[in-house]
Amino acid sequence: MNPVTAKLNADHLLLQALQEDITSEDVTTNAVMPTAKPGQADLLCKQDGILAGIDIFRRVFELLDETVQVKAFFKDGDAVKKGDRLATVTGDMRVILSGERTALNYLQRMSGIATYTHSVAKLLEGSKTKLLDTRKTTPNMRIFEKYAVRVGGGCNHRYNLSDGVLIKDNHIGAAGGVKEAVRMAKEYAPFVRKIEIEVENLDMLREALEAGADIIMLDNMTPEQMRQAVQIVDGRAQTECSGNITKENIAKILDIGVDFVSSGALTHSAPILDVSLKNLHAV
Amino acid sequence: MNPVTAKLNADHLLLQALQEDITSEDVTTNAVMPTAKPGQADLLCKQDGILAGIDIFRRVFELLDETVQVKAFFKDGDAVKKGDRLATVTGDMRVILSGERTALNYLQRMSGIATYTHSVAKLLEGSKTKLLDTRKTTPNMRIFEKYAVRVGGGCNHRYNLSDGVLIKDNHIGAAGGVKEAVRMAKEYAPFVRKIEIEVENLDMLREALEAGADIIMLDNMTPEQMRQAVQIVDGRAQTECSGNITKENIAKILDIGVDFVSSGALTHSAPILDVSLKNLHAV
Amino acid sequence: MNPVTAKLNADHLLLQALQEDITSEDVTTNAVMPTAKPGQADLLCKQDGILAGIDIFRRVFELLDETVQVKAFFKDGDAVKKGDRLATVTGDMRVILSGERTALNYLQRMSGIATYTHSVAKLLEGSKTKLLDTRKTTPNMRIFEKYAVRVGGGCNHRYNLSDGVLIKDNHIGAAGGVKEAVRMAKEYAPFVRKIEIEVENLDMLREALEAGADIIMLDNMTPEQMRQAVQIVDGRAQTECSGNITKENIAKILDIGVDFVSSGALTHSAPILDVSLKNLHAV
Amino acid sequence: MNPVTAKLNADHLLLQALQEDITSEDVTTNAVMPTAKPGQADLLCKQDGILAGIDIFRRVFELLDETVQVKAFFKDGDAVKKGDRLATVTGDMRVILSGERTALNYLQRMSGIATYTHSVAKLLEGSKTKLLDTRKTTPNMRIFEKYAVRVGGGCNHRYNLSDGVLIKDNHIGAAGGVKEAVRMAKEYAPFVRKIEIEVENLDMLREALEAGADIIMLDNMTPEQMRQAVQIVDGRAQTECSGNITKENIAKILDIGVDFVSSGALTHSAPILDVSLKNLHAV
Amino acid sequence: MNPVTAKLNADHLLLQALQEDITSEDVTTNAVMPTAKPGQADLLCKQDGILAGIDIFRRVFELLDETVQVKAFFKDGDAVKKGDRLATVTGDMRVILSGERTALNYLQRMSGIATYTHSVAKLLEGSKTKLLDTRKTTPNMRIFEKYAVRVGGGCNHRYNLSDGVLIKDNHIGAAGGVKEAVRMAKEYAPFVRKIEIEVENLDMLREALEAGADIIMLDNMTPEQMRQAVQIVDGRAQTECSGNITKENIAKILDIGVDFVSSGALTHSAPILDVSLKNLHAV
Amino acid sequence: MNPVTAKLNADHLLLQALQEDITSEDVTTNAVMPTAKPGQADLLCKQDGILAGIDIFRRVFELLDETVQVKAFFKDGDAVKKGDRLATVTGDMRVILSGERTALNYLQRMSGIATYTHSVAKLLEGSKTKLLDTRKTTPNMRIFEKYAVRVGGGCNHRYNLSDGVLIKDNHIGAAGGVKEAVRMAKEYAPFVRKIEIEVENLDMLREALEAGADIIMLDNMTPEQMRQAVQIVDGRAQTECSGNITKENIAKILDIGVDFVSSGALTHSAPILDVSLKNLHAV
Repeated sequence: MNPVTAKLNADHLLLQALQEDITSEDVTTNAVMPTAKPGQADLLCKQDGILAGIDIFRRVFELLDETVQVKAFFKDGDAVKKGDRLATVTGDMRVILSGERTALNYLQRMSGIATYTHSVAKLLEGSKTKLLDTRKTTPNMRIFEKYAVRVGGGCNHRYNLSDGVLIKDNHIGAAGGVKEAVRMAKEYAPFVRKIEIEVENLDMLREALEAGADIIMLDNMTPEQMRQAVQIVDGRAQTECSGNITKENIAKILDIGVDFVSSGALTHSAPILDVSLKNLHAV
Repeated sequence: MNPVTAKLNADHLLLQALQEDITSEDVTTNAVMPTAKPGQADLLCKQDGILAGIDIFRRVFELLDETVQVKAFFKDGDAVKKGDRLATVTGDMRVILSGERTALNYLQRMSGIATYTHSVAKLLEGSKTKLLDTRKTTPNMRIFEKYAVRVGGGCNHRYNLSDGVLIKDNHIGAAGGVKEAVRMAKEYAPFVRKIEIEVENLDMLREALEAGADIIMLDNMTPEQMRQAVQIVDGRAQTECSGNITKENIAKILDIGVDFVSSGALTHSAPILDVSLKNLHAV
Repeated sequence: MNPVTAKLNADHLLLQALQEDITSEDVTTNAVMPTAKPGQADLLCKQDGILAGIDIFRRVFELLDETVQVKAFFKDGDAVKKGDRLATVTGDMRVILSGERTALNYLQRMSGIATYTHSVAKLLEGSKTKLLDTRKTTPNMRIFEKYAVRVGGGCNHRYNLSDGVLIKDNHIGAAGGVKEAVRMAKEYAPFVRKIEIEVENLDMLREALEAGADIIMLDNMTPEQMRQAVQIVDGRAQTECSGNITKENIAKILDIGVDFVSSGALTHSAPILDVSLKNLHAV
Repeated sequence: MNPVTAKLNADHLLLQALQEDITSEDVTTNAVMPTAKPGQADLLCKQDGILAGIDIFRRVFELLDETVQVKAFFKDGDAVKKGDRLATVTGDMRVILSGERTALNYLQRMSGIATYTHSVAKLLEGSKTKLLDTRKTTPNMRIFEKYAVRVGGGCNHRYNLSDGVLIKDNHIGAAGGVKEAVRMAKEYAPFVRKIEIEVENLDMLREALEAGADIIMLDNMTPEQMRQAVQIVDGRAQTECSGNITKENIAKILDIGVDFVSSGALTHSAPILDVSLKNLHAV
Repeated sequence: MNPVTAKLNADHLLLQALQEDITSEDVTTNAVMPTAKPGQADLLCKQDGILAGIDIFRRVFELLDETVQVKAFFKDGDAVKKGDRLATVTGDMRVILSGERTALNYLQRMSGIATYTHSVAKLLEGSKTKLLDTRKTTPNMRIFEKYAVRVGGGCNHRYNLSDGVLIKDNHIGAAGGVKEAVRMAKEYAPFVRKIEIEVENLDMLREALEAGADIIMLDNMTPEQMRQAVQIVDGRAQTECSGNITKENIAKILDIGVDFVSSGALTHSAPILDVSLKNLHAV
Repeated sequence: MNPVTAKLNADHLLLQALQEDITSEDVTTNAVMPTAKPGQADLLCKQDGILAGIDIFRRVFELLDETVQVKAFFKDGDAVKKGDRLATVTGDMRVILSGERTALNYLQRMSGIATYTHSVAKLLEGSKTKLLDTRKTTPNMRIFEKYAVRVGGGCNHRYNLSDGVLIKDNHIGAAGGVKEAVRMAKEYAPFVRKIEIEVENLDMLREALEAGADIIMLDNMTPEQMRQAVQIVDGRAQTECSGNITKENIAKILDIGVDFVSSGALTHSAPILDVSLKNLHAV
């Protein structure tokens, strides 16, 4: 993760997570280790997958004690295997013990997302369709989860409601129609943004094209409808296909020719990648 | 969720999550809806499960606009079915559109955890063993995830490093042995806390019992070892069994007689429960 | 200003501004007015201009005391004249005295920007060129200043570095050329964003067009160069003209046909609109 | 700026301003520069003026990356000329690009205020009257703007409502008269504060003197009235003249002999000083 | 306490104190009271003294639940006696239980300071000397403790380092002498502030007078020295006597004629006033 | 104090306390010392006692300027005597002057508590009874005050409402009896916590024992009642004696045999230990 991003938009969340886990003190560690003791532990991989978040893992320890050293043997995006030693953590054993869980909670979740995303993205190989995430992320985890999707080979849809225009059915209703909604968005939205609109049938699609939408989301259409939609669009806009796409059912859209497919499951239902800190010993 | 807890320890996280999703403004909504329009939407359940977080869902909208009304037809802990209308949201349509995703992100994750926990807890019915969560929660989501575990029928292990003593192998090493570690913890820890210690074999177990540990965690033992352990303990301490327990393998510990079984999967790998806000219309 | 935007992204800045002005207490007011006294004051306009920020003015008082009533006789975007009574403020006189300066500091600056923007936008009437702001805003005032530009009849360029791609000469250098920079941006950037690139001459312009840039910023070009540039572009991208454009020199670009002209002066050098709170009296 | 002041009361505002400009990541920079590249840029002056804020400019970069070096060739208060190279910035080019706008936004505004203040203060040279600022500052910019006024040769009036007593007409009304208001203030206010009172005519002036006011503000008086007022005061209190004083009209009060003249324009309407970061190149 | 002061500078401290006491939830209350139960409790006085902080006591409960009612039978500054019922608290019993300790911790400390201050101030009755506090307050409690001193009949010295000038020996050393130090302070300090200087002997005193100091602090002088000092000053400045003044030894300065005596003990060593919440019962 | 605890839970309070004392700038220091001057001062002890908080004292200066050096000649828990030089502070004299008061305010209060606690704990020597603190701490000072109690030889009761269960009379009333209250707490409370209950007479005591309470608080009992209570308990639970225990009256419970005695006075009424920073001189 870019260090400026981390400093401005990750550090305070990491600190907050540490404070969630230590509201007064780490009672156990303070009880048995009244003074600093240099030590080292291994970060072990317990499941095959794609690594994501190793810098975040390091940063958690650094925020507690800037003298802790995390030496990583793999980098984000690398395929890792059960049994791999991913990194060593060296420093005051008390700090390693106090920061361990928070650091792992980030790493295992980010790597889980990267692993799942990678497995879905692989299914799209050979097609022209790219994989997108959604805003169905865990609250206060978006910066980490969107990053993990990229590490896993996915692309990011808009980051949030402020940096992308996506006109949904309710917006269309409020505006009084597709044409009017696109017009209002074009007039209002900062001009660096594309206008995306969600359509449910081919009539809406045609209207959206005429109105000059930049991206058209084909919402919950059948493969057959999508195929027709792509023909109608004919390159005049980008197309996105959406609606409960998972690893299990993505095959059906492979040869349709939509530009993008978005999947909430990448961030909301990926299981973690099991990683663990082991062999802490004095050095 | 208790309203005092929510005010002190949830509200600022909800606000932060909303600010993560709206860093300047909801461009789309502001483009097409320059003024307030009263409307109503339905919260629909799209999958069978256990509801958790309906007050959090409501609170997200209230933080945006205190006049929004969320009328719930189910309460936390209720079994809900695909197709159930869980609630209606009534208020300025712009607020409903701007808050929708954040409110759903909380609700679907909390209900996912409650649903998964419930399914595991059911497998333990009839045994004396109770189901515990762990600290393997999503960063900055612990207050919500631990609550969801309780709603699903699980019990909470310690909340964080500050409110429970759990002596692990590294602590034992640092202290110079089980006996010494327990002694140091008893001397240091605020006296309202029980002393829990993790043991890997029966020798350590006996030493822990002698030292007067209140709770003994049987770490990664085979069912046979656990059975022996429970006999040795014989009621002199509580026992907890730990180590990659999931829905798939929990059957093997059913009749062993440990007091508690803890599972990280409850919070780190439960898939979401699919819920959705639909039918927004003017009123 | 949309109330959701205000709640999430303005309120904490208003509160912080009030705390900047009252670090312990309003000594003078507390000295002479030990108890609440209902009163009313008039918000008077002392200069012709365009009003912007009346809701922010109201919100400052509400944050101090929710029973204060601000009754506005004009709304944002209205042309106001010297002598107009813009609003009345009714409530505890102590609150009116303590909040007055902060409320006015926002209103006078926002109205100043709207007034200046309006006067520049008027010079563009009849041409196809629209007026844009820049990121040359006052730190921690962007949400207010960008809004005021819109109220004054301008359009917003990107809000910040996170929601728009603008490739400048240094980015081009780092990427190894216009073509490569556009390619990298297209690959990396969330797909809802247009790719804008800054060009300094017609060769770069041609390269940018070929690379598929969505918007081309003509940086510090002479009117003659810009005219050629517009012809070359010929509708294949949007064009933005930039470089020390002010009210005094904007005439020279009127008939060139660029789509947008951006001006930092709108936010960094607009003088305030003089407004004042007068006639506070008991009621 | 004193480093303690900066640490306690500027740093968090600078960080907040950076976060306003980078709510998730600097998309453009991250797209074209995936890894660190050492580089250097020049801070150029594009207009004659007085420099203010060079340490703040440096601090913005340091908050992003403590290895960035800003080498300044001028210091706050120096007269700078169009074309002067004010400083060089050396470090990771990505950090320079991401921090540039925020650093410049502070520097150009602070230098603009210092420049304008200096030009007004020069008009007062030779008279006994000193130039004061007011509380008409930009919200959340006071610490920077009051400092810039000092750099430009002005003096600071009270910092905020908490550190100075200034009894205005409404306070007088509430107290029941000049005498009573001064008495109440003297009794209430921390004893290190002088009591200032605003008077509109010579009767009030005499009453204020008798009541023992330390400073008397002559509000919106004609030069002739002020002259009389100064004679009446005759050194028994300090005098301040106020009311829309600008560069254009300050001459008329030059020889009257008031101790201070305050001007809101110093902070609310000074145009920026144009500065720019140029010639970024790899090193 | 003035409600504007409370909103801007007390509320966030009260909330923080509540969060210090409830980092996740009030386990006991939530265990035994799953739902709201209306109840009422009495605030009882268990020691004679002066009440201070009743509005803060109320505000703590309101921040948890705005429907809680605190009906007070005494107000700040009232003499209260052991056995007096000071107030009733009515509302959800869970809220009363969860907020009780934090509300009492503020009230007992503030009332303790008011009580002690009052007892010292009484010893000064009849003399011309007024009682001042110092900056020896509890960290993050100053706004409450300085207020309590006023309630108890004391006066406030400067609030903090930003709102008052007090030149101590080290400052004099750095400046190169009393005269130079006073001159530098007069030139630098916002003009609404008086210049106070600490002197240790009569020579320094004379120098300070000549330099035009507004207030002279007689540091650790004997009563005899102070008497001489007051004669030398002869009304040309205010005088403050300082140095371990307590209730026990204040008599010795009674007839000396200094204007003020400051005592750190008012805030750093006043014992609490014992108050208690009793008789909680359902209503 | 453990450095992880300090980083996560003390630093932000120290910074906040410094900001309470310097809301804009240290006017006096900035007036007379425009540039950095290296200097050194001595931290002197002016009263016999127990030192607590020397690392906090150091940390306050480090937060202002990381180059300041505090060299301590004593450590927390050491008995110090009037006249002892406790430490030297070396660095920019401006930083020493600006941080002095805040650093001392922490140190004198923490040392005061340690000193008082030590004197009470000594009275318990030879008995089996240990000394406990309570939650009657100063708001936003708990982390420091509980630590100081430990330094002085006391033990900590629960840290806050979230990490310990203590069933009081109102909870018993709400639950419908001692038995039911203990049952509900056992069912609800995270299993690492002991259940403590407050009893007022011997009947309640018996009921509590039967219900399986882990700790029983004997509230406001006479020594004779306590003696009987201890006999009844007979080791089946821990006992705590509570109710206005101070140094003056603690003798009466010495030979009763309760396990713990808790005293609010340790934190709410300990006078400070007088320490002072002296002899600042250039180096």
